[in-house]
Amino acid sequence: MNTRFSYQQLYNFSLNIFLKIGCSQADAETATRSLLSADLRGVDSHGVARLSGYIRLWEAERVNPTPVIKIVHETPSTAVIDGDKGLGLVVAPFAMQLAIDKARAVGTGWVSVKNSNHFGIAGYHAMMALEHDMIGIAMTNASALVAPTFSSERMLGTNPIAVAIPAGRQPAFVADFATTTAANGKLEILQRKNLEAPTGWVLNKEGEPSTDSGEIKKGGLLLPLGGDKEHGSHKGYALGAIADIFSGILSGASYGPWVPPFPAYIPMPENMPGEGLGHFFGVMRIDAFRKADEFKEHMDKWITRFRSAKTIAGQEKVLIPGDPEREMEIERIKNGIPLLPAVVADLEALSIKFNVAF
Amino acid sequence: MNTRFSYQQLYNFSLNIFLKIGCSQADAETATRSLLSADLRGVDSHGVARLSGYIRLWEAERVNPTPVIKIVHETPSTAVIDGDKGLGLVVAPFAMQLAIDKARAVGTGWVSVKNSNHFGIAGYHAMMALEHDMIGIAMTNASALVAPTFSSERMLGTNPIAVAIPAGRQPAFVADFATTTAANGKLEILQRKNLEAPTGWVLNKEGEPSTDSGEIKKGGLLLPLGGDKEHGSHKGYALGAIADIFSGILSGASYGPWVPPFPAYIPMPENMPGEGLGHFFGVMRIDAFRKADEFKEHMDKWITRFRSAKTIAGQEKVLIPGDPEREMEIERIKNGIPLLPAVVADLEALSIKFNVAF
Repeated sequence: MNTRFSYQQLYNFSLNIFLKIGCSQADAETATRSLLSADLRGVDSHGVARLSGYIRLWEAERVNPTPVIKIVHETPSTAVIDGDKGLGLVVAPFAMQLAIDKARAVGTGWVSVKNSNHFGIAGYHAMMALEHDMIGIAMTNASALVAPTFSSERMLGTNPIAVAIPAGRQPAFVADFATTTAANGKLEILQRKNLEAPTGWVLNKEGEPSTDSGEIKKGGLLLPLGGDKEHGSHKGYALGAIADIFSGILSGASYGPWVPPFPAYIPMPENMPGEGLGHFFGVMRIDAFRKADEFKEHMDKWITRFRSAKTIAGQEKVLIPGDPEREMEIERIKNGIPLLPAVVADLEALSIKFNVAF
Repeated sequence: MNTRFSYQQLYNFSLNIFLKIGCSQADAETATRSLLSADLRGVDSHGVARLSGYIRLWEAERVNPTPVIKIVHETPSTAVIDGDKGLGLVVAPFAMQLAIDKARAVGTGWVSVKNSNHFGIAGYHAMMALEHDMIGIAMTNASALVAPTFSSERMLGTNPIAVAIPAGRQPAFVADFATTTAANGKLEILQRKNLEAPTGWVLNKEGEPSTDSGEIKKGGLLLPLGGDKEHGSHKGYALGAIADIFSGILSGASYGPWVPPFPAYIPMPENMPGEGLGHFFGVMRIDAFRKADEFKEHMDKWITRFRSAKTIAGQEKVLIPGDPEREMEIERIKNGIPLLPAVVADLEALSIKFNVAF
């Protein structure tokens, strides 16, 4: 049912689409790389499947294809960036590079971003730090779908947090997760298969627990990691809130229920308290703490020990954060990226509209 | 069944005990303040109930009452500190103060600590940043009780993370949580009442799901926030791992299953890969990003909006992280701190042993 496409084919197509809306060559390349990293890593909801969504935001004049990204305030270890309504896929790597430069100079760099748009997957940006022997951190706010503990109102986005930590001979530790029990994409997969959602994933729009995997489309709500109070949902709520505050309030972006929606057909929130969507990035140079080689040896020891931990019945091994995505990437580079018919149709429509070969 | 004691009475007693084991006046005051902040905030498992545990660590020569805390490496925004086996209750405020000083100078400060001991509650240390209009972050590793996703082996501590964010007229946002579904202290409360634990809190020692609230004492395991894979436990596992790596590996402390245990009667792990327990602290100056007044106005707006969010049936209001602890503190300063008979007996034994009036 899925058709596989080579990375190169999807790369060329996406690049040409971004060029068609007016992005510079460099920006189109950056946007394409960040976008497709999601497809490679198996986060199918955030990759090329969203390309037409980004284009609709451009059509609605909510994405500026030629942003002049500016540093509006800075200190040796911090900065606030105005993304000038650019694609988050472009603004985020700019901000991450600035954080890396600051880390090189004074040990760490912390950059909060306003006036941006969706940035793809957080993990891609966090991983930019790895090749410099630095730890990378990336988070973002997003339009509200999530109910805080005890609430039946959409107040927070799925607000992902990613942390990438270099190792030595072992592959890097890369955690990248929505601060909800499950991401919306997982619900959509269940819905497509006509399966129920587990308890603790969603509420219906009245705020009652539900196992309907189509609940979000009916006005329902995602639950913070933990699900309910008894299972620690106040912790997932706090994590989502921290990502919102670091991304939105530190920078001057919008926040909470006022974050602009991704679908261009949904009107912008009224009385937005800030500009656009916000992100937050952090970079720590390993040797600002201890010798990078020493650190990486211990990371190898940590990873090896955890990977060999005793398993529960029915499980072969304990995974390290980033393992499944890395294995997926190897497989997809080799065998191509599978796309659903609906996504293929979407790309074909873009191909016709922009007269770009697919 | 509980007896209430005034903060001042517990303060004087703890202070005198710390003085008796040889702490300086300043260190004894610092240790007492951090220790008792747990009792004030309602984290009864981490307060004066642990005083005798700290003393037993001193008796076992695993706590040095007169540490010479040293900066072993630093950059403008980072440092690694050797706690010289001091009380974490003393080492942590030292490290936090250094992070505050670095934030004042270059915008942010990040301090990783080795060779320390348990530091009480993470929230206390994070909150030190608030009066300076700074955001405070504190985390620690701890001896292993927690099973990573798919594992039946104790590999991580409950590794708490605290984030304190200043507001304006509203009280500060203070999140402080173990990276497990529930803290061990909550299990002990259920056990005392002969109640079962909810699903998703513990495994028995064979790695099977259990609702026995006494499971940990029988060799069982705590579960990461999320409980099982289907409910996102790989995210809780990642959070606990990040706290472990930032606290242990960045600093040169021990980590994972090799973190020294709190109970002095449990032997130290063999082949420890680092020195003592580790902590990690971060401080970000608000006005390194934007004017503090502006930020705090928006925090007030965020807090007010979330507090007034629509609630689910049976709930009166949505809480802001830190609300319950702040209310508890007001109540306990007024009415005293309730202690269980077993804790009172423990303090009376200390009183006799050290000839300190209780």
